[in-house]
Amino acid sequence: MTASAELSRCSLNQATINDADLVTAIEACVRAGIPSIGVWRRQLAQRGALEASRALRAAGLRVSSLCRGGFFTSDDDSGWRRELDDNRRAIDDAHTLGSPVLVLVPGGIPDGGSLARAHARVREAIEALVPHAASAGITLALEPMHPVFAADRGVVSTIAHALEIVDGLPAEIVGIAVDSYHVWWDPRMTEQITRAGASGRLALVQVADWLPPTGDPLVARAFPGEGRIDFASFATAVEAAGYTGSIEWEIFNASLWKDDPLRVAARVAEAHRLLLAPALSHGNPPSQHVADEEAP
Amino acid sequence: MTASAELSRCSLNQATINDADLVTAIEACVRAGIPSIGVWRRQLAQRGALEASRALRAAGLRVSSLCRGGFFTSDDDSGWRRELDDNRRAIDDAHTLGSPVLVLVPGGIPDGGSLARAHARVREAIEALVPHAASAGITLALEPMHPVFAADRGVVSTIAHALEIVDGLPAEIVGIAVDSYHVWWDPRMTEQITRAGASGRLALVQVADWLPPTGDPLVARAFPGEGRIDFASFATAVEAAGYTGSIEWEIFNASLWKDDPLRVAARVAEAHRLLLAPALSHGNPPSQHVADEEAP
Repeated sequence: MTASAELSRCSLNQATINDADLVTAIEACVRAGIPSIGVWRRQLAQRGALEASRALRAAGLRVSSLCRGGFFTSDDDSGWRRELDDNRRAIDDAHTLGSPVLVLVPGGIPDGGSLARAHARVREAIEALVPHAASAGITLALEPMHPVFAADRGVVSTIAHALEIVDGLPAEIVGIAVDSYHVWWDPRMTEQITRAGASGRLALVQVADWLPPTGDPLVARAFPGEGRIDFASFATAVEAAGYTGSIEWEIFNASLWKDDPLRVAARVAEAHRLLLAPALSHGNPPSQHVADEEAP
Repeated sequence: MTASAELSRCSLNQATINDADLVTAIEACVRAGIPSIGVWRRQLAQRGALEASRALRAAGLRVSSLCRGGFFTSDDDSGWRRELDDNRRAIDDAHTLGSPVLVLVPGGIPDGGSLARAHARVREAIEALVPHAASAGITLALEPMHPVFAADRGVVSTIAHALEIVDGLPAEIVGIAVDSYHVWWDPRMTEQITRAGASGRLALVQVADWLPPTGDPLVARAFPGEGRIDFASFATAVEAAGYTGSIEWEIFNASLWKDDPLRVAARVAEAHRLLLAPALSHGNPPSQHVADEEAP
């Protein structure tokens, strides 16, 4: 097995090298032999999706996902329309980048709101976005988030609940994103990953580790292998579920961001070989479409 | 309805006035008209359970629970024996205090351990403690904790999982403790509270609120009514489940601890009347036994 085969499923999510611009991120991936990248919208703001897409393509990089849409928290009509419009623009950008997936972070509970109402809102919003996503050939991936974020970022806390929320919507257009950091504590994790795979909804997999004391859980995620999560089991579950896409290394860690992006990328590649590759089949992740030069 | 009827189910957990000694805590409860108290073991360390029990009885206060046993994290024989012995002493103290319940915090994942192993260890430990708890007339209440604590304090994260772990053990000796702060995010919360009640396992209910940004989630719990938790629904669910015990106000909040304990107790009483009492039946919570002057 060549090194590149071991890394065929490896993707570096830009959040892991949060302070690097896209040019540096591309260089880091190429030098480390990482074939895919998870792109953040805020990194597109300067240059636009089209220019970013050209740079990524010139470097031979695949895009595994665009992060992120979602945040469906408005309860008035104009806020609601604004949120849906913003998500439609994100879908267009995902299409332009050739990303198969747009990650949806559900959003929290607005002041005066309730958990139940927020859950209903997430379903309504995703349903409203299906036609646009379908025409762009993008899969919307609802991300269950660690319950520590339920009030302020993501009211959907488990794989089981995410699957329930998207139930009945077409699986090729609406799936879920599973990040080890968010779901590792769930005693039902493995069975729910299996269920997600069986129903064709496992659209994206991400990894980060959990190590107490966490400080601010948003930016204190640990490098896989250094925390309490069992990644051999996680990778085995993902593989057994029939997932053939990229595993994105997405590590929000304020200390890691101070490190040299090229060194971080090399560390990701090495850890991927040791920790995940043994449990994964190799081969290029499926690309859902080749991007046109124009957004739909 | 008299004020005392409205407060009949109200208990002040000592953690809410963490820096006050037992004498001050007793005075705070009595002045605020709160009839019950949740006692912490560290507050017993100075005077011992017997002296504490006399002081509580002289003031006419009931003990709703003793906090806490648990922390089953040792994987070697001597550590294991030490943990079980410590929990047996806690059971003895609960008996001496006339507390119907000993709260069990499961403990986290030791370095090199796994979530699955930690889950198994919790069940083994509780099973080993059943005979001692039975002879003391104490109900062990396993507390599912917010997943933010899964690695370092409590590997049991949901009511459903707690019920699964204690399944098959006698319900009068092994129940669960439900704290709104730990379970509020769970879309299955209400149905699982109902299930706990129907199986006779709802041994204790506690309340604290969740408000982002949380800072350190351990000591930044919000005063009920100030966060995102819907306490009308919570109290209704608890009542519908047939729970007739105390609702303990247990608010780990570093700012609150700087406040005057008498003022905090008065605030708890007032908030209990407004937020919880309308959904609760009144009358004295059942006492499971009257304490002897000697530990068993």
